[in-house]
Amino acid sequence: MTATPAWPPQSAPRLHVETQLGEGVAVPIDGNPAHYLISVMRVKPDDIVLLFDGRSGEWAARVRDIRKRDLVLDCVQQTKPPEHVPDFWLCCAPIKKGRIDLIAEKACELGVARLQPVLTRRAVVDKLNLDRLHSHLVEAAEQCGRTALPDLADMVKLDALLKSWPADRHLFFADETGGAALDATLRAHPGPAAFLVGPEGGFDPAERDAIRATPGAVPVSLGPRILRAETAALAATAAWMALNGDWN
Amino acid sequence: MTATPAWPPQSAPRLHVETQLGEGVAVPIDGNPAHYLISVMRVKPDDIVLLFDGRSGEWAARVRDIRKRDLVLDCVQQTKPPEHVPDFWLCCAPIKKGRIDLIAEKACELGVARLQPVLTRRAVVDKLNLDRLHSHLVEAAEQCGRTALPDLADMVKLDALLKSWPADRHLFFADETGGAALDATLRAHPGPAAFLVGPEGGFDPAERDAIRATPGAVPVSLGPRILRAETAALAATAAWMALNGDWN
Repeated sequence: MTATPAWPPQSAPRLHVETQLGEGVAVPIDGNPAHYLISVMRVKPDDIVLLFDGRSGEWAARVRDIRKRDLVLDCVQQTKPPEHVPDFWLCCAPIKKGRIDLIAEKACELGVARLQPVLTRRAVVDKLNLDRLHSHLVEAAEQCGRTALPDLADMVKLDALLKSWPADRHLFFADETGGAALDATLRAHPGPAAFLVGPEGGFDPAERDAIRATPGAVPVSLGPRILRAETAALAATAAWMALNGDWN
Repeated sequence: MTATPAWPPQSAPRLHVETQLGEGVAVPIDGNPAHYLISVMRVKPDDIVLLFDGRSGEWAARVRDIRKRDLVLDCVQQTKPPEHVPDFWLCCAPIKKGRIDLIAEKACELGVARLQPVLTRRAVVDKLNLDRLHSHLVEAAEQCGRTALPDLADMVKLDALLKSWPADRHLFFADETGGAALDATLRAHPGPAAFLVGPEGGFDPAERDAIRATPGAVPVSLGPRILRAETAALAATAAWMALNGDWN
């Protein structure tokens, strides 16, 4: 047996693009991604770059026409089919900058299908820079091998989210006033799901009542220690992926 | 029925101290913690501050003798017994500054008993500022209600760690070349455990063989996506806590 070189090359840069990919499609690249390929990764003509557009899987593309600030990539072969991630939404209140960015990055890596910002009464932040969150999702997807980004939904008020909640989707939430063990509860509730995480100050009592009254709501406990909002979001997502997602 | 005010007050600041706590013990506070209490939290005489020393549980202490740069706290009552966290170690290769700090913070919140830095061949960082990590553990413990810090061990080389591995402690590790589903594997291996996470570049093949050959080693899979080192560490810890720890 002869060892064949890995295809695509393991060191190939990976890039999210807006252009719809397919056999023979030429993808012009400029701006920051061009700077990254030309000056940071120092690609040469005929080098391979991996591309994904969020709908067409992953494609190997060959470098040509490198100029100072742009280059062209020619799609040569599909290397991964379109992605199916488990049907899991992470719904979370906006929290301060670095920590919401962390949620976006880790949610993408962990395999979340949709990130849904939710405005609650005790939120200390009431605006969210969706462009910045989108950039974090792109960077995480490039890094972790996903071929699609999580959907990033516009921020909605908690009332509106609950009022239109799809009854066939479990709405897990961390109930500090007592909830069932996460392990057994997740196992007892397979299927489409979401986890709702409040802001640092938690939900207020009226919000908590409204969540409980929502068809599909399932209170759980995340253990005896107080978790920061982003820790709760990531721990709950990891546990769901391990138990009900595609980690097994 | 008359509503009694919560004791200790929910808004009481929480502080880790080195002084051994007990009934009637006077705890002098200076430096940064004094600045925090006096200038940030603006404590007044007779206010309550919650203290923990890592061995004596949590104590409510009363403020007195506030001066410009120091104050004294008198222990008045134990408010929590000494903590028992599940017997779980997180063993991880040093990674760059912000990301190893994140591991320390989240490991503490999630309930890790010991944080063990491990030097591996592909580590891009070979020094670790243990004082800085200790500060992150302290801050996280103050925040999350723990009354003891995780043990922070000195960094050891991987060979040395494996050679002296206690055979009665499961050594879970994420095996990128294939490992069993996390869910079922954790469930099949209750009891004292550790999770070993490599650096960004993973373990080299010889290291992987050495890990596999260690009595107690259990390869697992963390799913189909590539996780950053710190994401793997936190996801594995959260899953272990949910399944085998004290979250149920």
